[in-house]
Amino acid sequence: MNEREIVALIREMAGGPHPGVEVQIGDDAAVFRFPTPDVLLTVDSLYEGVHFDMDTYELSDVGWKTAAAGISDIAAMGGEPLCALLSLAFERPPSSAEVLALVGGFREVSILNGCELVGGDVCRSPGGLALTVTVAGKPPDHGPVRRSGAREGDLVGVTGCAGDSAAGLFILQRGDDGARERFPGLVEAHLRPKPRVLAGTILGEHGVSAMEDVSDGIAPDICHICSESGLGCEIQADLIPLSDELKELAEEASVDPMTWALSGGEDYELLFTAPPGRLERILDSLGKLDIPASRIGVMRPAGEGCRAVDAEGETIELKGLGYEHFA
Amino acid sequence: MNEREIVALIREMAGGPHPGVEVQIGDDAAVFRFPTPDVLLTVDSLYEGVHFDMDTYELSDVGWKTAAAGISDIAAMGGEPLCALLSLAFERPPSSAEVLALVGGFREVSILNGCELVGGDVCRSPGGLALTVTVAGKPPDHGPVRRSGAREGDLVGVTGCAGDSAAGLFILQRGDDGARERFPGLVEAHLRPKPRVLAGTILGEHGVSAMEDVSDGIAPDICHICSESGLGCEIQADLIPLSDELKELAEEASVDPMTWALSGGEDYELLFTAPPGRLERILDSLGKLDIPASRIGVMRPAGEGCRAVDAEGETIELKGLGYEHFA
Repeated sequence: MNEREIVALIREMAGGPHPGVEVQIGDDAAVFRFPTPDVLLTVDSLYEGVHFDMDTYELSDVGWKTAAAGISDIAAMGGEPLCALLSLAFERPPSSAEVLALVGGFREVSILNGCELVGGDVCRSPGGLALTVTVAGKPPDHGPVRRSGAREGDLVGVTGCAGDSAAGLFILQRGDDGARERFPGLVEAHLRPKPRVLAGTILGEHGVSAMEDVSDGIAPDICHICSESGLGCEIQADLIPLSDELKELAEEASVDPMTWALSGGEDYELLFTAPPGRLERILDSLGKLDIPASRIGVMRPAGEGCRAVDAEGETIELKGLGYEHFA
Repeated sequence: MNEREIVALIREMAGGPHPGVEVQIGDDAAVFRFPTPDVLLTVDSLYEGVHFDMDTYELSDVGWKTAAAGISDIAAMGGEPLCALLSLAFERPPSSAEVLALVGGFREVSILNGCELVGGDVCRSPGGLALTVTVAGKPPDHGPVRRSGAREGDLVGVTGCAGDSAAGLFILQRGDDGARERFPGLVEAHLRPKPRVLAGTILGEHGVSAMEDVSDGIAPDICHICSESGLGCEIQADLIPLSDELKELAEEASVDPMTWALSGGEDYELLFTAPPGRLERILDSLGKLDIPASRIGVMRPAGEGCRAVDAEGETIELKGLGYEHFA
């Protein structure tokens, strides 16, 4: 397909009209009508060979993961995603089946989260597939949840389990089809992460003091909250929730599960802080909606650094752990 | 620099606070307060080796051109750009001087056009520099100008001169330093195009029936307006405004200037349609602000196709001309 045909196909896939969408795909810019003057805006890029490879991903997974990365950033502010733009670059002209799979995966997770594809860009890439997603959304009524709002003594919470995505990547990189079948939850967590939009809005309504999505790993992400809030933290490693599949794989592969839990990115769970009394109520509220969430630590003065303590009382420095693009 | 340092430097460059910017660079998402519920949204990606190469571009040119491409899309709807996100991917860790040049060029043109850098993404690329810009803006009061609003008998107008950017690229690709010095306007048009934001808002206020920026070339861009409006067109080739530098270079290099004028993209001039009486008033209004603009043709029934007629009365089919990423 050429550029014009690709845009025409994506426009057909998007259908419409949709609420809020005043000008859809196919003009110089899209027009969306937002319910509030304040708009959340975020952008994420994914490159073949850096963020994914086509040996282990289906095209629909790539589309899904791209949309999920952008939507998760909106969830991390306590917001609701409303519309998205997708910039696509192909090394060679794609077939219509390829565009359908890629954009289909993108739309699958975005529609699940109330986020409409309204525009984008299509061009040639110098090598490999490249995608950039822009997501715009509505902040919570009391204002967006920042990384900078944590206070000393606030407790640290996290939704879901930690490290499943990294463990899934471990399986995919080994090319072990047997493990892939025995640990479907880990592989799914890596290929098709589910952004925590509902949890984010509930956490926003409850006035959590700081929040971030786990995109780089619990260690670097709590370090961001510490540095933006001018604080340190003490994470209790044995409180970090691990899935049964992760524990089983870790034992089988002789990997320390904390490696995945602390340094593994792309879980897209939400990491947040709240005063002690409030945290219990928050965990209750989430629990009633079957959203798992756990207390894993406490915010400390900056001088104490960012650290985790394991069951034996050993200290783990959190700074420097996790994925770094230019390591 | 690593990812964190790059973000910190860009945040410092952006400074602030700025009007409308509620949450700046450094959180999961930016928050911008828009003056109208309707928001224009556009995205453009530029790849090294496809859209530019580092033999002929300075990093500051790459930054400039990326911002200009996004801002021009907002201008093409008659809108005002207000804020931008920038996703940057580097093959290897950049130096601070490189980040300063790249983002400096981006900010130079965006600030000139009232558009604040509010967020973005930084990661590693599999090869070469890659940039994606998202620009959000305010539509004109009577609503955005679409590609689809042209009517039969509307006249076709264009701002500025056609083909300068393509002629500039011709000079850069030949590596001819002498020509580079003798034709500075052409080279500047290619490296540092100036989006027509003021012209776009005036055209929007005057209620032009359709508009598009010249990003692919006058031929493919008028074909977009024709196809979206369900019409054909007749462009008078001898009315297409050519700069003196372009004419001189064309003669010297024995190139038909119409090749650059019709098929040369990235001029970022505005191509628009309006009823006959209104077009004269529009050209007057633009002229009073020293914005050059010309009438170049007329919208015709779809059955007559999209064509140009040259001074000798020869017909040039416009469909199929211009840049195509997957040609």
